[in-house]
Amino acid sequence: MKAVRGGITAPAGFLAAGIHAGIKKPPIPDMALVVSVHEGPIAGVFTRNQVAAAPVLLDRLHLQHGIGRAIIINSGNANACTGSRGLADAEEMTRLVAGRLAAASRTVFVGSTGVIGQPLPMSRIRRGIPLLMTRLSRKGGRDAARAILTTDKKTKEVAVRARIAGRTITVGGMAKGSGMIYPDMATMLAYLTTDAVVEQRTLQRALVAAVDSSFNCISVDGDTSTNDTVLCLANGLAGNPVLRAGSTELTAFQRLLDDACTSLAMQVCRDGEGTTKIVQIRVSGARTHADAKRVARTIGTSSLVKTALFGEDANWGRIMAAIGRSGVRVAPQKIGLAIGGIPIVKGGVGLGWSAEQRLARVMRRKEFTIAVDLGQGSGAWRLWTTDLSYDYVRINASYRS
Amino acid sequence: MKAVRGGITAPAGFLAAGIHAGIKKPPIPDMALVVSVHEGPIAGVFTRNQVAAAPVLLDRLHLQHGIGRAIIINSGNANACTGSRGLADAEEMTRLVAGRLAAASRTVFVGSTGVIGQPLPMSRIRRGIPLLMTRLSRKGGRDAARAILTTDKKTKEVAVRARIAGRTITVGGMAKGSGMIYPDMATMLAYLTTDAVVEQRTLQRALVAAVDSSFNCISVDGDTSTNDTVLCLANGLAGNPVLRAGSTELTAFQRLLDDACTSLAMQVCRDGEGTTKIVQIRVSGARTHADAKRVARTIGTSSLVKTALFGEDANWGRIMAAIGRSGVRVAPQKIGLAIGGIPIVKGGVGLGWSAEQRLARVMRRKEFTIAVDLGQGSGAWRLWTTDLSYDYVRINASYRS
Repeated sequence: MKAVRGGITAPAGFLAAGIHAGIKKPPIPDMALVVSVHEGPIAGVFTRNQVAAAPVLLDRLHLQHGIGRAIIINSGNANACTGSRGLADAEEMTRLVAGRLAAASRTVFVGSTGVIGQPLPMSRIRRGIPLLMTRLSRKGGRDAARAILTTDKKTKEVAVRARIAGRTITVGGMAKGSGMIYPDMATMLAYLTTDAVVEQRTLQRALVAAVDSSFNCISVDGDTSTNDTVLCLANGLAGNPVLRAGSTELTAFQRLLDDACTSLAMQVCRDGEGTTKIVQIRVSGARTHADAKRVARTIGTSSLVKTALFGEDANWGRIMAAIGRSGVRVAPQKIGLAIGGIPIVKGGVGLGWSAEQRLARVMRRKEFTIAVDLGQGSGAWRLWTTDLSYDYVRINASYRS
Repeated sequence: MKAVRGGITAPAGFLAAGIHAGIKKPPIPDMALVVSVHEGPIAGVFTRNQVAAAPVLLDRLHLQHGIGRAIIINSGNANACTGSRGLADAEEMTRLVAGRLAAASRTVFVGSTGVIGQPLPMSRIRRGIPLLMTRLSRKGGRDAARAILTTDKKTKEVAVRARIAGRTITVGGMAKGSGMIYPDMATMLAYLTTDAVVEQRTLQRALVAAVDSSFNCISVDGDTSTNDTVLCLANGLAGNPVLRAGSTELTAFQRLLDDACTSLAMQVCRDGEGTTKIVQIRVSGARTHADAKRVARTIGTSSLVKTALFGEDANWGRIMAAIGRSGVRVAPQKIGLAIGGIPIVKGGVGLGWSAEQRLARVMRRKEFTIAVDLGQGSGAWRLWTTDLSYDYVRINASYRS
């Protein structure tokens, strides 16, 4: 397995484009299109938010057929809380793309991201789609990756490749999303492409697993915004024998998909709204993995922990307080805590100033680990969190201005 | 019922003092003492955090006897995560006070607030206690209220009075706490006194009810920091007939206690870390009160909603997204939303720009209401939240510096 250049168009047979259609101020790109040279199985994972946006509702319907040909995305408007009009607009977007590709509408998927509650500017979108068609190319991946951004500072692309069953299989992808303050992660969209030959059910299972160990470990919960979507489209051009459940070939493909998703997730994390640090929270010694996950999430989402990280303040009491209120039954006198490899708490009691003074240096690093040992069993979990900075407040206070 | 001057020493028979003992930088007051002229029933509500501080562990033990005479409090050090040494220190504090009052140690309660994980500077505390004794007075309430503060900008005091069963009954109180970012409210301490004649079990039930409709509606959850404590000490000097369960007299007393707690809670809220706005979240039309509470808490604790409040941005989509991920089963097409009395969403759909333009004026107010109607039943709940500002980050990033 190796990382290669490119993004969504790195696998064989994918074209993409990104343009300014007039949804955002010129010349900011705001529409993207990804097309496969022919249709193939598609897998999807969506927000669990009950107030789901129109494109999510429509994609869920289309996914019942499990076949994809193209994905049309706009930024600047989320098409959420827009009622039946919003659904009609999303349908029209897929129909317009399908018409130009001589494909069925149900093979076209749609994504929207941006402000909630405003109707889509459909006249601009109608003009944008033909323009996107003329711009489709193997080199259009970067333009597409740029056109799906909102508050992101950087584009997020990935491409990974491996020899599997004698064939070269590539997974490419792009994502948008910055900020990961649980449970309010900014709307995250991620699109993956692959030339692997794989059945839809297998692909769906692989995508769910990859999302679980990547995006769900930075967003801290799959249950987030109105628009969150991850799609993976496979066109089979690699010509490998079908990837069978339980085979080493499928395991190798799963690793490719995991790596692609983790790379995109970490790019989202590093571009987090106002993020200056990435901190890994590792919880071990829990009775169960679920317990460990819950403790890790409580620490990783604490505003007080996150502001202390920003202030480079070794205020580990806030971590202890988070453990104590996570809802998991703990034995305070068994808790151990180490930050950046330096033991800080043993048997629930602080190890004193000298340990804390060594800690000051760790807190100044850009990336480090907070390791909690609950001393109760073998349950473990890890996730990444960021700090909470002035810039997070600035970006989110004035998002629509 | 009327609000009167004073605080913790407003009811008959209470003395208080506050001094600088050297835990904080001089001349910041850091120790407080409240004493009743004789012992009486005491009620308490404590943090549900499993990592509870030594003073909480000790107070819980003392509360099993249900009799109180004095409360000794220090700020600057939370005496949390300090193991058996912390417990011995807390015990010594109650023993030193009890000795000077010729009272039993178990009638003395102790509170600590400040940094977690450092041992108490006991030599300074030992010198502070005799000094506090010499300063005890009817006029010492304000000094005590000042000495329990940490990041608070203002002291928080209350006194309310009513004629009940032909007698004048007074409830007084003081609190510390600022910031209310759930679930990470800064440690909150509140102490109440009353001259009412009331049995311990009745007082305990009344205090739990008062806390539930006041502090638990701003902290958003009783399950918070390592040190959270609310105590109410009653010395019976009002000479009223014992307040019986189910009597109108008890109802009148409950109202006094509710008002005192709500006043303190709102003072904590208004002094919130970096707070510029107080917003009431009212949820109605839920299937149950518990559902309404859960939706209200999800909205009131959303970092994205809170930063939008700070930015005076009518970004109501974030409210809809919070409703959708609260975990309560909702019908998106039935949701109504009004902000400051202006309808914004009906039947789950935004009402357009003209409503939003009117909203801009509301968002500039210091206090207003966000009303959500789920359209499913008669369950309702209300709580208060604040905005999330630059100052919240500043205060919490550098708390220990």
